[in-house]
Amino acid sequence: MLNRVRSAVAHLVSSGGAPPPRPKSPDLSNAPSAQPAVPPEASKSPPVRAGSGSSAPAKTVEARTSFSRPTFLQLSPGGLRRADDHAGRAVQSPPNTGRRLPWSTGYAEVINAGKSRHNEDQACCEVVYVEGRRSISGVPREPSQGQGLCFYYWGLFDGHAGGGAAEMASRLLHRHIREQLKDLVEILQDPSPPPLCLPSTPGAPGSSDPSHLVGPQSCWSSQKEVTHESLVVGAIENAFQFMDEQMARERHGHQVEGGCCALVVVYLLGKVYVANAGDSRAIIVRNGEVIPMSREFTPETERQRLQLLGFLKPELLGGEFTHLEFPRRIQPKELGQRMLYRDQNMTGWAYKKIELEDLRFPLVCGEGKKARVMATIGVTRGLGDHNLKVCSSTLPIKPFLSCFPEVRVYDLTQYEHCPDDVLVLGTDGLWDVTSDCEVAATVDRVLSAYEPNDPSSPSHGCNQKEAGDCGGWGLWEDLPPDRLQQGPVPRGLRPHCL
Amino acid sequence: MLNRVRSAVAHLVSSGGAPPPRPKSPDLSNAPSAQPAVPPEASKSPPVRAGSGSSAPAKTVEARTSFSRPTFLQLSPGGLRRADDHAGRAVQSPPNTGRRLPWSTGYAEVINAGKSRHNEDQACCEVVYVEGRRSISGVPREPSQGQGLCFYYWGLFDGHAGGGAAEMASRLLHRHIREQLKDLVEILQDPSPPPLCLPSTPGAPGSSDPSHLVGPQSCWSSQKEVTHESLVVGAIENAFQFMDEQMARERHGHQVEGGCCALVVVYLLGKVYVANAGDSRAIIVRNGEVIPMSREFTPETERQRLQLLGFLKPELLGGEFTHLEFPRRIQPKELGQRMLYRDQNMTGWAYKKIELEDLRFPLVCGEGKKARVMATIGVTRGLGDHNLKVCSSTLPIKPFLSCFPEVRVYDLTQYEHCPDDVLVLGTDGLWDVTSDCEVAATVDRVLSAYEPNDPSSPSHGCNQKEAGDCGGWGLWEDLPPDRLQQGPVPRGLRPHCL
Repeated sequence: MLNRVRSAVAHLVSSGGAPPPRPKSPDLSNAPSAQPAVPPEASKSPPVRAGSGSSAPAKTVEARTSFSRPTFLQLSPGGLRRADDHAGRAVQSPPNTGRRLPWSTGYAEVINAGKSRHNEDQACCEVVYVEGRRSISGVPREPSQGQGLCFYYWGLFDGHAGGGAAEMASRLLHRHIREQLKDLVEILQDPSPPPLCLPSTPGAPGSSDPSHLVGPQSCWSSQKEVTHESLVVGAIENAFQFMDEQMARERHGHQVEGGCCALVVVYLLGKVYVANAGDSRAIIVRNGEVIPMSREFTPETERQRLQLLGFLKPELLGGEFTHLEFPRRIQPKELGQRMLYRDQNMTGWAYKKIELEDLRFPLVCGEGKKARVMATIGVTRGLGDHNLKVCSSTLPIKPFLSCFPEVRVYDLTQYEHCPDDVLVLGTDGLWDVTSDCEVAATVDRVLSAYEPNDPSSPSHGCNQKEAGDCGGWGLWEDLPPDRLQQGPVPRGLRPHCL
Repeated sequence: MLNRVRSAVAHLVSSGGAPPPRPKSPDLSNAPSAQPAVPPEASKSPPVRAGSGSSAPAKTVEARTSFSRPTFLQLSPGGLRRADDHAGRAVQSPPNTGRRLPWSTGYAEVINAGKSRHNEDQACCEVVYVEGRRSISGVPREPSQGQGLCFYYWGLFDGHAGGGAAEMASRLLHRHIREQLKDLVEILQDPSPPPLCLPSTPGAPGSSDPSHLVGPQSCWSSQKEVTHESLVVGAIENAFQFMDEQMARERHGHQVEGGCCALVVVYLLGKVYVANAGDSRAIIVRNGEVIPMSREFTPETERQRLQLLGFLKPELLGGEFTHLEFPRRIQPKELGQRMLYRDQNMTGWAYKKIELEDLRFPLVCGEGKKARVMATIGVTRGLGDHNLKVCSSTLPIKPFLSCFPEVRVYDLTQYEHCPDDVLVLGTDGLWDVTSDCEVAATVDRVLSAYEPNDPSSPSHGCNQKEAGDCGGWGLWEDLPPDRLQQGPVPRGLRPHCL
């Protein structure tokens, strides 16, 4: 049961505040290029405007791609070649050795044949310890001074136009989250409501009593209550922005080519935070029932946000695009006729007389997997893409792509879970061909096939009393349905005990 | 049952296309001031910028308000005085005479004591006939040429800062909807998908065959399918915009002071369209279950839209406001400290160092009923308000107030209904003090109290076979709970047979 993880994490946190054993975390220091270090107090500069620098030349992109896969796959050089084989399409899962991924995590991936030279996607699975930077009163904390926090972290990064952004995000995004949480360590462990204002200087008068900071309320009769949960959500949201800003800053020096969708999960203090920026998807399968934990951000689902941006900032359209949507491309000969359209405020359609500027290419066009922003890109949230331009143009795409995730919170303490309940993260390669229910059915079929005492069973290694306490987490990346259906199912799907 | 209304409307429409009997529609020609006529081909000019004209002087507003209530209340001069009595707070309902409101509609209102000099709210209940303007081929239609369409219409208009906008909307919004539907009469009655493009000139080559208009698909491999339903939604959305534009144009000549929330229902061709711009609310009570048919638009629910607008168009904040949200007002002495904030992309909170510009007043502040945009107004959608300025400033509020409604569609053909099922529309005066479930319970209590053969029973007047076919619609305006609980309940709540 997922409860077991709560106990495990609580144990780690309550065992004196020392960092938990880290060997289960993959060592990312050998990952090629880019500094893993995040500035501890990175200034929150405004997002770097896309296109403010020149595009990276094509040869640089080529030179960059020394193909790599997640280190927890522990691939040998031969394994790496097989993982990159578009013809064989071998399913890759972590080896069934003693070194297991945290929290019964399974993983399986396969190259999306023919789509790009290499697999541009990446994944990450970590246990991250957060040491507090300072106390609520602003005094810097000594390492020995108190208990830190521990969070579990999973990430899927669906790369495009190069693998650099996905690789950088897989190595650094959880560190940005850790940075954002450092100031919250004491606050999150204090059951009283978070202070609205913190002193800037250690030991400032009255700084130990946050209530004095409230001051007179002038025209506001009350103050908002802010929850601990919303602080974690804010930390994750800002971490995505810092990650994106770092990619913008370092895109030349470290050749961070392309962009990536990012779907990450943070488990902290009893709650699961699912942050999604892109078209990947997370579901929880609870007792056979599917609980959506994300929604996809595409030109279709974000049409009105994109159109509003184009409407308010027409200079972003460069005279080449119209922010209006039409159900098909208008032909010049149709000038003066009346065509169906949707403006940024509309969910319905109406007819309008076709004018000259309606002949511009629509900001959003196409349907389903063919939907595009500025005829270029099929997702509207993600990290990177700072060099991305409209095809045959110097017009940057980035202002329409947002790096901000939507964060959904699932409180594990509020639900009862079965041993076979899982959280599944998948890129669009999985969900394009497999429904939520089919995935849930596969999970059920696989897990129910184990005998109670099967050594490979999910409950093996737990004592009888805890046998119901195993939770499984699957990360699937571009796994086509024929691989899901063939037996035995990818090893990564089997939950392992922590 | 609501089915009965479908039959009634079908009968009206199928009876040769002639306009239905109209005496049930209140005669609005005597309503004071403002032209009821809508230009048949009003040009869709860009929304008039708020503040582009001078504010109406206060004396004009005073001179304007010859207090009126909905004509269907048929109030005598004495009744009008009682309706305006802040002390007595008499509940007003239509008289129980032969002249009944269409489709078993009930209505009850009471003045919101002490809130404004007069009751600034208005209501409307109409059966509207739409005659087609031209055929699909573009040829203007003769009145005798074909069948028109009929829609049922209910509207609640919650006025503020004067009664002019609500009154104008109650007289004209349904006519704007009719105007928008005129071009769709033939299309909506044709079961084939709507043509994407229509010829501009009557009898243009091939204009009788819409399929030829599709043309080559250039870079798009397909065209979007547009439903009949989405055309009605688009017509309603545009009607709101035209209504708002008319208010902007005529706000001086016709002294359209103030603004109003607008909640309207259109029943057309088997579907109920609920369009809401403001903080009123519609629910359907179906077999005791509550089905929400709208959501409220307030500074809190629309925080991110408002912040985004302020972020992208900082000139709208006039250097007086910050688009950031803080949980309380910041004191100047807190400069340099760290305060919780939310930016336009965030749902969570984070700490930021307080800088000088953070001392500006927040664009959105306060909570619940006290939440305000620019410290001025507590709703974020509605009609009018073109003269509204920030208190003690020349900064216009209007750009942050949107006239566009959210439209929800309820397909009556998809559900089974009980005789006592109702759709209830109420302004915030009702919902602030009464929950959806309490309203549903009141409906149940009132309707179940009737004996089957009670002359005042909902089923009276229907034959036995149709006795179950009566639907009730309630429009409640600022009706406090003590009036809901006292017996007998307002007469307007009793459904009358059509």
